[in-house]
Amino acid sequence: MYLGRVVGRVWSTVKHPSLEGHKLLVVEPLTPELSPAGRRVICADWSGAGPGELIYYCRGRESSFSFLPQEVSTDLAVVGIVDSVDVRRGRSDRS
Amino acid sequence: MYLGRVVGRVWSTVKHPSLEGHKLLVVEPLTPELSPAGRRVICADWSGAGPGELIYYCRGRESSFSFLPQEVSTDLAVVGIVDSVDVRRGRSDRS
Amino acid sequence: MYLGRVVGRVWSTVKHPSLEGHKLLVVEPLTPELSPAGRRVICADWSGAGPGELIYYCRGRESSFSFLPQEVSTDLAVVGIVDSVDVRRGRSDRS
Amino acid sequence: MYLGRVVGRVWSTVKHPSLEGHKLLVVEPLTPELSPAGRRVICADWSGAGPGELIYYCRGRESSFSFLPQEVSTDLAVVGIVDSVDVRRGRSDRS
Amino acid sequence: MYLGRVVGRVWSTVKHPSLEGHKLLVVEPLTPELSPAGRRVICADWSGAGPGELIYYCRGRESSFSFLPQEVSTDLAVVGIVDSVDVRRGRSDRS
Repeated sequence: MYLGRVVGRVWSTVKHPSLEGHKLLVVEPLTPELSPAGRRVICADWSGAGPGELIYYCRGRESSFSFLPQEVSTDLAVVGIVDSVDVRRGRSDRS
Repeated sequence: MYLGRVVGRVWSTVKHPSLEGHKLLVVEPLTPELSPAGRRVICADWSGAGPGELIYYCRGRESSFSFLPQEVSTDLAVVGIVDSVDVRRGRSDRS
Repeated sequence: MYLGRVVGRVWSTVKHPSLEGHKLLVVEPLTPELSPAGRRVICADWSGAGPGELIYYCRGRESSFSFLPQEVSTDLAVVGIVDSVDVRRGRSDRS
Repeated sequence: MYLGRVVGRVWSTVKHPSLEGHKLLVVEPLTPELSPAGRRVICADWSGAGPGELIYYCRGRESSFSFLPQEVSTDLAVVGIVDSVDVRRGRSDRS
Repeated sequence: MYLGRVVGRVWSTVKHPSLEGHKLLVVEPLTPELSPAGRRVICADWSGAGPGELIYYCRGRESSFSFLPQEVSTDLAVVGIVDSVDVRRGRSDRS
C-alpha cells in the first residue's frame, strides 16, 4: 500500500452503477517521510477519512476487494487511516 | 481512478470480438488541477462521454468490470463523467 | 489500450505450453500522435497484424482474455488493428 | 519480485477488516546490488521479518495470494527473507 | 512480455510455501536491441534458463499462470528462452 493524504473530492453524477454510494477522494501520494510522491489520484473510499487525514491506499484489482461482495469498478481505494508511521529516515544499511 | 479529458477516437475494424460495440476514446490524462499528466491512452467507453468532456477512468483488470457479465479485453475504461473537482491546490500539510 | 506499431518478432523454442501457437510480436509503443512512447515490448498476437502495421495492445491480466478459454501466460496482447486515429493535437482545454 | 529492506512500520487502528492481524512494514526497495531503488512502500507482512532485514516482496493481486484463503486488501506483501544474492555486477553481455 | 538476461540468483530459506521448489532468478531487463532497460528484478523460473541466457518474462497476475494449478505468490516469471529476435532498429515510420 501507499501513504497519502486526502486533499479533495470528485463529484460525479454519471458513473458506473457499482460506484454509487462510494465517496471519491482526491489523494496526494506521500513518502513514509510525508513528502509528496507524484501525481494525485482518485480513490474510492472505504475508510471514512476526511480532508487532510493521513491514509493508506491500495492499487489495482485488490483495491476492489474492500467492497466485496460488490464488484466495484475501481483501481484505487483508501483502505485505512494512519495512526503513526515509525520509519528510519536515513538510507538503508548495506549488508 | 484518474482524471482525463476525451480528446479523440480510434477507429478499428479488425479487433477482438469482445470489443465490438464499444467506443474507443483517446483520453488525455490530467492532474486534479487539470494539467496534462502523461501519455494519452485509449479507453473503452462506458460513460457515453463526448469530445472535450472531463471524465475519470480506471486501469487494469477492474476496468473490464464495467462491462460485466461480458469479459472485455480492455485494460482502460472510462467509468464516469466529472461534475466538479474540489481540491486543495497547495502542497500537503506536514503533520 | 495503447497504440503501437509492429516492428519485429521473437522466436522461441523453449516456452510455456500456453504460448504454443501464438506469434510473439515486438511492438513499438506510440502516442496517439504516432510518436515513439517508450520501451519496445513483446506482445502475444491475437490480430494477425504484419510488420509495420499500426495496432493497439492491452496490458495485464486482461490481455490474456483475448485467448479465453485458454489461460495464456502473457501480460501483453495485440487486440486490434487501427484503421485511423482522430485526435486533437493541442493540449487540453481548461474548463 | 523485488528486493527490499524493512525500514519501519505503520500503525493503524481504522482499517479494512481483512488487514486485521497483519503487520504493515515500511519497505525500502533495493536493486540486487542493494542500492535504493525508489519510493518506500507499505507491505503487508507474511514473513515475520524484523527491522533492517533484507526481504523480497511481491506486488499486485499475487501479493494477496500469500494470505489465501483470506482475501486481503493489499497490493504489496513481503513473501520471503533473503539469505544471499548472487549477481553479476557488470552490465549484461551483448549476444 | 519483456526481454531480459539471467544475471544471478536469490537464495532464500524463509519464504512463502508456494515458492518452495521454484528457482528465483535475478533478471536484467533488456530492450529488443539488447540494451539494459531498468531495474533488475527477481523472477520465479519456469524455463530452466541458466546464467547469461536471453529469456522473456511476464509480469503480474499472469506470471503465476505458468505454475497452475499451483497458486504461486509471484508477480514475475520467466516463461521462455529466446532463440532470436528479429527487429527493425530504426524509429517507427510515421504514417
